[in-house]
Amino acid sequence: MVVVMDLSAGEEQVDAVQRRLEENGFEIHCIRGVKRLVIGAVGDRQIISSLGLETIPGVMKVIPIMKPYKLVSREIREEGSVVRVKNALIGGSNLVSIAGPCAVENPEQMHSAAQAVSRAGATILRGGAFKPRTSPYSFQGLELEGLKMLAEAAEAANLASVTEVIDQASLEMSLEYVDMVQVGARNMQNYQLLRLVGRCGRPVLLKRGFSATIEEWLMAAEYIVSEGNENVVLCERGIRTFENATRNTLDLSAIPVVKSLAHLPVIVDPSHATGDRRLVTPMARAAVAAGADGLLIEVHPDPKRALCDGPQSLDPDEYAALMEELRLIAAAMGRAA
Amino acid sequence: MVVVMDLSAGEEQVDAVQRRLEENGFEIHCIRGVKRLVIGAVGDRQIISSLGLETIPGVMKVIPIMKPYKLVSREIREEGSVVRVKNALIGGSNLVSIAGPCAVENPEQMHSAAQAVSRAGATILRGGAFKPRTSPYSFQGLELEGLKMLAEAAEAANLASVTEVIDQASLEMSLEYVDMVQVGARNMQNYQLLRLVGRCGRPVLLKRGFSATIEEWLMAAEYIVSEGNENVVLCERGIRTFENATRNTLDLSAIPVVKSLAHLPVIVDPSHATGDRRLVTPMARAAVAAGADGLLIEVHPDPKRALCDGPQSLDPDEYAALMEELRLIAAAMGRAA
Amino acid sequence: MVVVMDLSAGEEQVDAVQRRLEENGFEIHCIRGVKRLVIGAVGDRQIISSLGLETIPGVMKVIPIMKPYKLVSREIREEGSVVRVKNALIGGSNLVSIAGPCAVENPEQMHSAAQAVSRAGATILRGGAFKPRTSPYSFQGLELEGLKMLAEAAEAANLASVTEVIDQASLEMSLEYVDMVQVGARNMQNYQLLRLVGRCGRPVLLKRGFSATIEEWLMAAEYIVSEGNENVVLCERGIRTFENATRNTLDLSAIPVVKSLAHLPVIVDPSHATGDRRLVTPMARAAVAAGADGLLIEVHPDPKRALCDGPQSLDPDEYAALMEELRLIAAAMGRAA
Amino acid sequence: MVVVMDLSAGEEQVDAVQRRLEENGFEIHCIRGVKRLVIGAVGDRQIISSLGLETIPGVMKVIPIMKPYKLVSREIREEGSVVRVKNALIGGSNLVSIAGPCAVENPEQMHSAAQAVSRAGATILRGGAFKPRTSPYSFQGLELEGLKMLAEAAEAANLASVTEVIDQASLEMSLEYVDMVQVGARNMQNYQLLRLVGRCGRPVLLKRGFSATIEEWLMAAEYIVSEGNENVVLCERGIRTFENATRNTLDLSAIPVVKSLAHLPVIVDPSHATGDRRLVTPMARAAVAAGADGLLIEVHPDPKRALCDGPQSLDPDEYAALMEELRLIAAAMGRAA
Repeated sequence: MVVVMDLSAGEEQVDAVQRRLEENGFEIHCIRGVKRLVIGAVGDRQIISSLGLETIPGVMKVIPIMKPYKLVSREIREEGSVVRVKNALIGGSNLVSIAGPCAVENPEQMHSAAQAVSRAGATILRGGAFKPRTSPYSFQGLELEGLKMLAEAAEAANLASVTEVIDQASLEMSLEYVDMVQVGARNMQNYQLLRLVGRCGRPVLLKRGFSATIEEWLMAAEYIVSEGNENVVLCERGIRTFENATRNTLDLSAIPVVKSLAHLPVIVDPSHATGDRRLVTPMARAAVAAGADGLLIEVHPDPKRALCDGPQSLDPDEYAALMEELRLIAAAMGRAA
Repeated sequence: MVVVMDLSAGEEQVDAVQRRLEENGFEIHCIRGVKRLVIGAVGDRQIISSLGLETIPGVMKVIPIMKPYKLVSREIREEGSVVRVKNALIGGSNLVSIAGPCAVENPEQMHSAAQAVSRAGATILRGGAFKPRTSPYSFQGLELEGLKMLAEAAEAANLASVTEVIDQASLEMSLEYVDMVQVGARNMQNYQLLRLVGRCGRPVLLKRGFSATIEEWLMAAEYIVSEGNENVVLCERGIRTFENATRNTLDLSAIPVVKSLAHLPVIVDPSHATGDRRLVTPMARAAVAAGADGLLIEVHPDPKRALCDGPQSLDPDEYAALMEELRLIAAAMGRAA
Repeated sequence: MVVVMDLSAGEEQVDAVQRRLEENGFEIHCIRGVKRLVIGAVGDRQIISSLGLETIPGVMKVIPIMKPYKLVSREIREEGSVVRVKNALIGGSNLVSIAGPCAVENPEQMHSAAQAVSRAGATILRGGAFKPRTSPYSFQGLELEGLKMLAEAAEAANLASVTEVIDQASLEMSLEYVDMVQVGARNMQNYQLLRLVGRCGRPVLLKRGFSATIEEWLMAAEYIVSEGNENVVLCERGIRTFENATRNTLDLSAIPVVKSLAHLPVIVDPSHATGDRRLVTPMARAAVAAGADGLLIEVHPDPKRALCDGPQSLDPDEYAALMEELRLIAAAMGRAA
Repeated sequence: MVVVMDLSAGEEQVDAVQRRLEENGFEIHCIRGVKRLVIGAVGDRQIISSLGLETIPGVMKVIPIMKPYKLVSREIREEGSVVRVKNALIGGSNLVSIAGPCAVENPEQMHSAAQAVSRAGATILRGGAFKPRTSPYSFQGLELEGLKMLAEAAEAANLASVTEVIDQASLEMSLEYVDMVQVGARNMQNYQLLRLVGRCGRPVLLKRGFSATIEEWLMAAEYIVSEGNENVVLCERGIRTFENATRNTLDLSAIPVVKSLAHLPVIVDPSHATGDRRLVTPMARAAVAAGADGLLIEVHPDPKRALCDGPQSLDPDEYAALMEELRLIAAAMGRAA
């Protein structure tokens, strides 16, 4: 940590900072510039925020040097992690495709979606049974019935399954039926939920909050891993910016940035990021070219009848065509798809 | 709702849109411009998103006209709502001051804070017993013990009390001890929690998510009110922008905007917005001048020993001086403080 | 400056950094933490960016400590600057009001606006003769004829005058007619224009770019002052954020932040920030309460006939009422208005 | 255009809107919903903003339907444009590579850069002679001498050349030496400069402003084309967001969005977008996979000695390796590189 003192800080103020640091076990180095005194301090990263240094008169700012996460850091595991979900290995040499409808609606829809995405090459089926919706008046999901439909469709098509959980009750129900649980973007900083999935013993798909920094996203993953669950897959799904031509701005540079900082696999959801099915294919290709370990794509047997997010869903033919294109890009990246 | 058709949309495509609208009870008006066909449709706002219009070939975009919220709308209640929390009336002619430490730490701290803010003119004591923290390694709150300390300190100083709740368990515990419950910025779109506080029978302080639009914030309030709880107070606390000179950017124009759209009271938290105690006083003054119904200010008996958010906390003397300044601005606004 | 080395940096890499720093006259201090080597370096702030340190293998990041601006810094002038524009003193104890229409349209409009704003208490008349417009097909200003109308109206009403300049030609023309020149938000990083106004010998109103950080804004002011012109007034006019309920988000915390960093006066333009005349009055009041030295308000004799920005313009009666309200807030702040 | 009236708007207010529209040649359609009156109006898109409709009492909002640009719109030219710069065709079946140093420094540097990028497959050499820098104390470019070095190096390596222009003087000088002129991100809304390059008779590379919406970017292109110059190439270079792990956030979805709206070619600059040479290669690959027509990459013979932007520059070997990777992705996209 580096503590920068005000131009006008007096000796007693500098002493106060040094005393506070030494009391807490930090080793101190003073660097006196022409206009500023800078105090370098070596010690425990985790307690910096509780030292209250910024409140000591004369302190201009405090700059932490170490990253705040540990368990997810690339520094403690040089090789990338591989997360197994049934037969799918996310983070390995194969590109993994997760696909399915936004919301589970009925058995026919799920069965039809499962068969279609399986034929096209997906290995994990998605489908929402608990839908966090902006409006209290929108369709909120089929809950338990939806989980059953998802599980049956996945099994019939020999796919693994993933669904979003939103609280303890939905998590407990889901664990009976699915292979992987998802924490959605709006819950990325719902720390109670992060702790719960950290203890659930099942792989977790952690979506980036639409206005979370990469550091905050990794801290959310740290919550899960710190509870003992190392099987976390990160999912970039667009961030909120001033641009409104797309629903969110897909931040593909997050892929190589996360890969350099953390050892967890990273996949991309171009459907939610763009909100527009015409943009899903180019953004899926770009995600693979940027190094993503997999894709999460919304596919609905009949998008114009979808109860949720129809405008961003592909139909089975469009998805099959997308997968063909991805195979070419994946091959250029030296990956199977 | 207005549906804009593509330049190239053919007759069958237009027919498909019209059929879909008519099937769902909408009345239709076609407006043919030189280059675009625009279809105006009058009907139920709540079902627009499930019509899947954007997925019909030839549709360029769908523009809703009505606001998505109803119960919180100024249109259904022309006069502003007043929310009573013990003796404090939020939204009335008096400016209401909520103050206290970020986290409850021990009985002495709470007692000392309560006496100080009461003397300065606050009527509601805040204090966190359940702390959602970015890092799993940071102090997470004293939970039940904290609630007791908060309640005792508030009672001794004749103050009402408010605390943040983060899930069902913390809500149930809090209802035993506090007069008002707070939903924090990170949980503004935790819809399960919104429903729970909507049924809890106690006034709710709903903080704006740091990247929520005003419309999303009002939809979150709509969740609470739609469960039968009309006692919702909105709290602006800064939004995330590119500017990093302050922790967040305090959006004071949200006050008059919300006042024009909704009938709920609006207060402001300049402590979290700026993250810097030197900016709290000017921003508190500005909030009152912009029309805020109250303020939420972090006050700690000894900020440099605070376990949480010390750098943004005022000490008792600073808070008393702030309240003096606010009285002058409030008087200029024709309000008591 | 602080240079943080990679965990894996070897001795030769550290040597390379040290050599590069020493060659350029920096004094070096090494701080060895458990996981990182940090190199503190004391020397010339201005050459840091040309050292290419980030390109040396093993360097993780470079953190400058000193601010990049000098001449505008509060550190070299503890007392705030006061800029004189004819009889108006911006930055002194009086609140200064600049008002007038977005664009100069004709002599009657300017005369009528000038008389109205003067009566209400403004001391500087604004009016655009060169309009930077998003569309090449929009009205672009009356140029020389507009300058003459502005000057005549200002003189008749005994007001000073200010107009926006956009290049060398418009600057040269304007210097014949106005007392102060304005650099608009879109030109805040047009460094050629900044240099030109830095040599023009007339006070400069420098608007903040709508996506400029405060540091970039101060660097733009540094450009002007470094050419010898100290008479720079900063104008906050809203920043671009994700919120679209207002045209931009007025960043009032910029006022106390700038005041702490720089010695230049700061005024606020709530008309452009909000784009909505109903928000101008509350945001003007808030700006004064936050410590602004003045206000820039769009006033048009007949806003619904305005060629430009009518929706955000006040009419003369609304402006007079606003000024009455401001007087109350200014008085509460200990200022005359 | 659609005009939405307030719930409370009376008959005279509706009449006032209709009169105003009819006076200006608009054809009117009224749609009366349960709670709102909506007026559809068909007429000239270009005059909407001067109608002052928002200022008429009772008007809630005005929603334009048509896009504000015409000449760059895909609607007037279904096939994409191809821009020729010497032998390079941007927008055709080949991926075009522009490369070179940020700033021209000396003849050896330019010669060495030109040879290296040519060998690797680039066809256009870049090099800045006029540098818009955030600090007035940074290196500002070699101007005329720099243009000569750029021209000589390009000619010797049989490359076309491009350089940034910042005002009339730099444009006039540059036209003597380079094949294409660039308008930088900070000048994207410098409308005087846009008009000048619109009349210069040379292809223009128009960078997206770092906080410009896609619509504003296309309007900037419209300025150039409206002056008679159709040879405009758009360049995405990252937008400003809250994320600070990268300098800017590269918005690759802008590529398919622009392609759907406009007929101009689009290239991508991953060097400025990320500010980090380690991210240039993955982002370059992703840009090609998203459908970019070319790339602009910073290459310096010795990045650690670069006077400008060394941290984001590739050295010749890294650039050659990047080009190898791009060939694979381009081939997967059915393009030569």
